[in-house]
Amino acid sequence: MANSSVNEMNISIMSNFSGSKKVYIEGSRPDLKVPMREIELSPTTGTFGNEENPPVRVYDTSGPYTDPDYSVDIRKGLPALRRKWILERDDVEEYEGREVKPEDNGYKNRNKQTSREHYQSLKREPLRAKEGKNVTQLHYARKGIITPEMEFIAIRENVSAEFVRDEVASGRAIIPANINHPESEPMIIGRNFHVKINANIGNSAVTSSIEEEVEKMTWATRWGADTMMDLSTGKDIHTTREWIIRNSPVPVGTVPIYQALEKVNGVAEDLTWEVYRDTLIEQAEQGVDYFTIHAGVLLRYVPLTAKRVTGIVSRGGSIMAQWCLYHHKESFLYTHFEEICEIMKKYDIAFSLGDGLRPGSIADANDEAQFAELETLGELTKIAWKHDVQVMIEGPGHVPMHLIKENVDKQMEICQEAPFYTLGPLTTDIAPGYDHITSAIGAAMIGWYGTAMLCYVTPKEHLGLPNKDDVREGVITYKIAAHAADLAKGHPGAKNRDDALSKARFEFRWRDQFNLSLDPEKALEYHDETLPAEGAKTAHFCSMCGPKFCSMRISQDIREYAKEKGLDTQSAIETGLKEKAKEFKEAGGTLYKEV
Amino acid sequence: MANSSVNEMNISIMSNFSGSKKVYIEGSRPDLKVPMREIELSPTTGTFGNEENPPVRVYDTSGPYTDPDYSVDIRKGLPALRRKWILERDDVEEYEGREVKPEDNGYKNRNKQTSREHYQSLKREPLRAKEGKNVTQLHYARKGIITPEMEFIAIRENVSAEFVRDEVASGRAIIPANINHPESEPMIIGRNFHVKINANIGNSAVTSSIEEEVEKMTWATRWGADTMMDLSTGKDIHTTREWIIRNSPVPVGTVPIYQALEKVNGVAEDLTWEVYRDTLIEQAEQGVDYFTIHAGVLLRYVPLTAKRVTGIVSRGGSIMAQWCLYHHKESFLYTHFEEICEIMKKYDIAFSLGDGLRPGSIADANDEAQFAELETLGELTKIAWKHDVQVMIEGPGHVPMHLIKENVDKQMEICQEAPFYTLGPLTTDIAPGYDHITSAIGAAMIGWYGTAMLCYVTPKEHLGLPNKDDVREGVITYKIAAHAADLAKGHPGAKNRDDALSKARFEFRWRDQFNLSLDPEKALEYHDETLPAEGAKTAHFCSMCGPKFCSMRISQDIREYAKEKGLDTQSAIETGLKEKAKEFKEAGGTLYKEV
Repeated sequence: MANSSVNEMNISIMSNFSGSKKVYIEGSRPDLKVPMREIELSPTTGTFGNEENPPVRVYDTSGPYTDPDYSVDIRKGLPALRRKWILERDDVEEYEGREVKPEDNGYKNRNKQTSREHYQSLKREPLRAKEGKNVTQLHYARKGIITPEMEFIAIRENVSAEFVRDEVASGRAIIPANINHPESEPMIIGRNFHVKINANIGNSAVTSSIEEEVEKMTWATRWGADTMMDLSTGKDIHTTREWIIRNSPVPVGTVPIYQALEKVNGVAEDLTWEVYRDTLIEQAEQGVDYFTIHAGVLLRYVPLTAKRVTGIVSRGGSIMAQWCLYHHKESFLYTHFEEICEIMKKYDIAFSLGDGLRPGSIADANDEAQFAELETLGELTKIAWKHDVQVMIEGPGHVPMHLIKENVDKQMEICQEAPFYTLGPLTTDIAPGYDHITSAIGAAMIGWYGTAMLCYVTPKEHLGLPNKDDVREGVITYKIAAHAADLAKGHPGAKNRDDALSKARFEFRWRDQFNLSLDPEKALEYHDETLPAEGAKTAHFCSMCGPKFCSMRISQDIREYAKEKGLDTQSAIETGLKEKAKEFKEAGGTLYKEV
Repeated sequence: MANSSVNEMNISIMSNFSGSKKVYIEGSRPDLKVPMREIELSPTTGTFGNEENPPVRVYDTSGPYTDPDYSVDIRKGLPALRRKWILERDDVEEYEGREVKPEDNGYKNRNKQTSREHYQSLKREPLRAKEGKNVTQLHYARKGIITPEMEFIAIRENVSAEFVRDEVASGRAIIPANINHPESEPMIIGRNFHVKINANIGNSAVTSSIEEEVEKMTWATRWGADTMMDLSTGKDIHTTREWIIRNSPVPVGTVPIYQALEKVNGVAEDLTWEVYRDTLIEQAEQGVDYFTIHAGVLLRYVPLTAKRVTGIVSRGGSIMAQWCLYHHKESFLYTHFEEICEIMKKYDIAFSLGDGLRPGSIADANDEAQFAELETLGELTKIAWKHDVQVMIEGPGHVPMHLIKENVDKQMEICQEAPFYTLGPLTTDIAPGYDHITSAIGAAMIGWYGTAMLCYVTPKEHLGLPNKDDVREGVITYKIAAHAADLAKGHPGAKNRDDALSKARFEFRWRDQFNLSLDPEKALEYHDETLPAEGAKTAHFCSMCGPKFCSMRISQDIREYAKEKGLDTQSAIETGLKEKAKEFKEAGGTLYKEV
């Protein structure tokens, strides 16, 4: 796990996708520029017609890494684009943060701690709310204030800034943006915006390193992850997280109980509110934007999981259940919930109220344990909102298709439309190795029904820690699910990309087709497996059918022929048919059915 | 495309999946033995309890290739397991079939034709119905007869033979089983049975060879394809098909218009009813079990596609549309439909009424052209049923989620519940390279709504011809969609496999988990990427979380602890809580919330 090579981390400018370039849309002030990816298209020519095809702009999560004018230095971190906006509000103060201890990284003493010198280059003094102030976007929204973050988002989502403010004020949407993560490009999670996806990264005791995790982060955002969760459970948790946050253009979430558990050497019973509180502060100062907190795993719910096929499958949920049972006490996350709110509101950290009792198998879907916890999450949502702390609600899990809608209906009602953030759900248990697919089915559906963010699942689910290829596969799969949901919801503008790609496909503008796709590199690679020659990029066929049988080519031939013969409308055909039928009848034949 | 090496085709016994063996369930007669795959499981031991886990039986499409007692010789073909049943019915006669011509394989003269000597070893005299006889399973079912095919299916599907007969008689299900394909293991396609999947194979002018196509067939059936379509469009169409059918344990479908088009040198306008009819007979004698026939692409519908984004995406549909428009005549498939029925009923070939006007993009979904054709397919269904010819209806295509159900509702009504057989549908256009996933979402949903068979889509869709890896990926993906649909429909017994796998997962019986999965080899491979040592196969963690954080392990610890302390029921917890609360209160604390 040592990482003296963190200096040599090979993260530099990533070329943008072929045919694409980064553009910025300016807002009401020069320091508010919203990045988009603009895809250039070739003109329509020849028999297909004669017209320019306007470039297509798509949402871009990749951050400055795909900006050729930006010079990457991960030891410095990304530009603090939001810092001015935060300081302007004049409700925060800089202070000397908590001292970083060896235990934060899972070491017993200072000597063993690695990368201190690298860490120093990243570190800066944290901010927190001034005495008596509340710095959450929800707080501002409820005061009727449109922040620069809200304006940024309005441009990104192509809606009005007032609409953004209203959705946040009502609790239907959240803007995860810790004042100590000024590098993040503001984004929103809510049912009335584009469906978002989250990618999980993080090491485990068994494998991975800091470099790999930072690389996974830039890799995942390149492919389209809207947020990132760092779920590390091994060594160097603190340092890994610092590197990630300082360099992450998207919000970062964590599950603080993991690090707290490391601090008590993995013995759940030894957890205390004090250790947990200290961990919250530590992570708040680093800039974590949302915390998964399993405050709904109550002592009295634990026996409800006794008869389950797969018990408790949430790491955090199982840890808290163990603690509750051992101490025979109510969860300290629950009993100290308001104190947690007091911390969250000083930094603007959003709750991701954890589904510790989510079903981990089809057999356990929608059971008593799951919905009991949901009731408590509803109760906690109200308390958080009392403090103007932003909230989203986590959801399942493993749920067969016919039980999916019930999850959304119940969550909407019980949690008063707070955004829903589900893991899949997987629609069957029988395909480890393909759980990105078993869950894409459920995720697309639950997104259609109203879920705001989908947590990705990779092919490695249930089997091991994902590597970079798995991360890519998981991200693209979940972009598919999210976009399919946007289409089904009739989200304005969603269909434009499908239409542009299909038009390119029909006109054999192969490069345009690839460049418009979610994974231009793979589309090109697969096409070129059988037809690599440059000429094939304008060929009116591919190796699926060959030149004679390509239906798209034949389709086009038909259109040209029809036009030529004046047969391109239904009335023309009917007239023609009537004439032919008359001819035939007069000649004694009966071939033509009466139209 | 030459294949002098067809002798050396490397198809031998395929080892069964790990932990699995072939078993046969005998029916009412010794020559009726239904193959199943039986997965052996380890016992539950240790803290999890002490019990045997009964073996799990699953549906098996792999044929004799996974029977260790069977000696494969593809030059001889599979055993003609149905031949006796067919002859017993005393309604067929052997006859000297049509002469195979060089044109059948796309050659101009006899010298160029390859593999004649190999072909000879496979060839046998075809059967057809005696004069005045109708040999379809639908005909028998309507006469109240339960055929051995129906009994075989009843055992395979775990239902009564009478139920099978009734579903077939009503037209709600079909048994594709040409009397000239006696090697096939009978199967049924219908909404009240397991959802089925089809895999497409076949060469194109650009790539592939006979060996590769035969290998794809045994490969696809190994992974679970219920039927196969040979969609070859290149050279050696006839020979390729013969090799495939003689060696295929599953029904084989084709699109006869492809070969007909080859015979007229790819010039659609030169197609004639006579060439087509000859092709039908040729393929009927070989043993094709179902024909995709685009008899619903009528001349007057063609202009309805003029404004579409992707025109006509069906090969057969575009060919017929071109023919209609050129000749300004109604499609000969439509005008000669009853003559086609007369041929089908002599061999028991089922119609797969083609969706030539299916939408090939989100923009074109559920449009006028698509549903106009569906109306005609409804009309043709009635005609086919008049002849007791079996019918299934093909469906889309590209359809966003919110428009999927309408397709099933309309098809059920218009086509009187004939089985629906869809291609996906793809729920978005924007992910070439991942269209197995974009379509798995739609396929699972449309299967849940009542579609009987799902035609697979591979990662190569829109980009090129699939290779073996793509075939595997496509088959497994579609097994997932079909099974997710079975679960959502509450299909009896479907959930058993999910429960057995999840139980194995919870108990860390890793090998059992892999062996129960759809792709045991991949599950094992992914797990072993990070934890290859043999000891890891009984470890209570994997590299996702490591030993400390595995929620399943913690879950189990919780259960043991709870049991130990007598805290494994909710009432026990509540009692304990009340006592603790009382203690605390007396000590002055207020930690415990009143239960």
